[in-house]
Amino acid sequence: MTYCIGMLTSGGLVMLADTRTNAGVDNIATFRKLTVFRHPSERVIMLMSSGNLAITQAVVSLLEEGLELDEHDPAEGGNGHTLLSVPSMFQAARLVGQAVRDVYRADAEALRQQDTPFIASFMLGGQIRGRRMRLFQIYSAGNFIEATPDTPYLQIGENKYGKPILDRAMHYEIDLLSAVKLSLISMDSTMRSNMSVGMPLDLAVLPRDTQELSVERRVGPDDDYYAMLQQSWSEALRGAYARLPSPPWMPEA
Amino acid sequence: MTYCIGMLTSGGLVMLADTRTNAGVDNIATFRKLTVFRHPSERVIMLMSSGNLAITQAVVSLLEEGLELDEHDPAEGGNGHTLLSVPSMFQAARLVGQAVRDVYRADAEALRQQDTPFIASFMLGGQIRGRRMRLFQIYSAGNFIEATPDTPYLQIGENKYGKPILDRAMHYEIDLLSAVKLSLISMDSTMRSNMSVGMPLDLAVLPRDTQELSVERRVGPDDDYYAMLQQSWSEALRGAYARLPSPPWMPEA
Repeated sequence: MTYCIGMLTSGGLVMLADTRTNAGVDNIATFRKLTVFRHPSERVIMLMSSGNLAITQAVVSLLEEGLELDEHDPAEGGNGHTLLSVPSMFQAARLVGQAVRDVYRADAEALRQQDTPFIASFMLGGQIRGRRMRLFQIYSAGNFIEATPDTPYLQIGENKYGKPILDRAMHYEIDLLSAVKLSLISMDSTMRSNMSVGMPLDLAVLPRDTQELSVERRVGPDDDYYAMLQQSWSEALRGAYARLPSPPWMPEA
Repeated sequence: MTYCIGMLTSGGLVMLADTRTNAGVDNIATFRKLTVFRHPSERVIMLMSSGNLAITQAVVSLLEEGLELDEHDPAEGGNGHTLLSVPSMFQAARLVGQAVRDVYRADAEALRQQDTPFIASFMLGGQIRGRRMRLFQIYSAGNFIEATPDTPYLQIGENKYGKPILDRAMHYEIDLLSAVKLSLISMDSTMRSNMSVGMPLDLAVLPRDTQELSVERRVGPDDDYYAMLQQSWSEALRGAYARLPSPPWMPEA
């Protein structure tokens, strides 16, 4: 399993991914699920993935090898551009979708013969100088949706445990520091409840209009801040519900 | 969908169920999912259900009509006892399992012909005078597991959104007032994130060794306490994460 969160805020992007993969409960490994494509000061494009590891690694490899946007693509920019040269984040999302479809054409039939579903989803966020910062979720069919100020975060993988805190506290105007804290709390809630999501974490923060990551960090189990956050948050939650008034219709114990 | 929580604490049992049922998103209705069987001062046995409504209602109807524990049951008590006369909660759980199997025999083949899975799960909690208070989860095959002080709560239906707060704050020695608050917070988190779980709620509290419910209440959208709890909890969460220290490895905005 996997849990990745992407947050699009007025101040920039926060991307957080765990690194655990598993084939059953007795075959657990660590793989990086966050890949950064960049041209210094010109573009930072981040890709996170969830699903069948053979599929997601093949998609990332195709993109890293410089897969070119299909020339027959009717939209602007379909002239041999790679992720490092596409003129817009929309074209970048199309290119990832194209890579997913390439892998589907290559592998899906063989997977089907062995009853293995073609499961893969991606999150793509970033900004190209002079263009809008955008965050997309790309499905296994290669189509995609985009985060907006109304729904400023996206999740892939094990999304449920970490969603309640985001639904209550996340919004587009949140500052980047708070967004990072929220993403870590959401991840911690997920890791506590689903052991197939696990440390270390890969975190990247891209302030708007900078085209440089301000944070690019692997957060491991020995990270002092993360340990403090975990404990403080548990204590804060217990304190918060202890302070809630008791139901007036319930007899005191 | 459905969300039901059962909590077994040193002080007694808390059972909370929503009432929403849906067949698709455009066919939503309200059905009670918490049924109480009782002999005043002698026993209170509560049953909550999740799954295909035709199946769960059939199970409850069989039990309400006085389904008798199979005489060929090898265990003690298998002599024509109903839920109102079985000598132990273990026998009560067997009886519910038997009812599920009866419905399976009657309906599963016809359901299968129309590709409808046989989905139903139940929670059974209560106490019979002089016996232990117990809480069981009964599966669609009629087998069951039991809550213990190590894992003092059980959930059926949409369990994920409401689990993080329980994993952090719920324990066997919690007082009943706090357990009720926690169950409502867990339910609120679930209703916010899954619109197929909805108001009103049915809440029942059974203090240990009393054989009388101290709370038996329908909590509707107009309940002042619930509205206050919702708002206070959201504010407390936002306040709690705002007070968490910022990551030392992150530049200030």
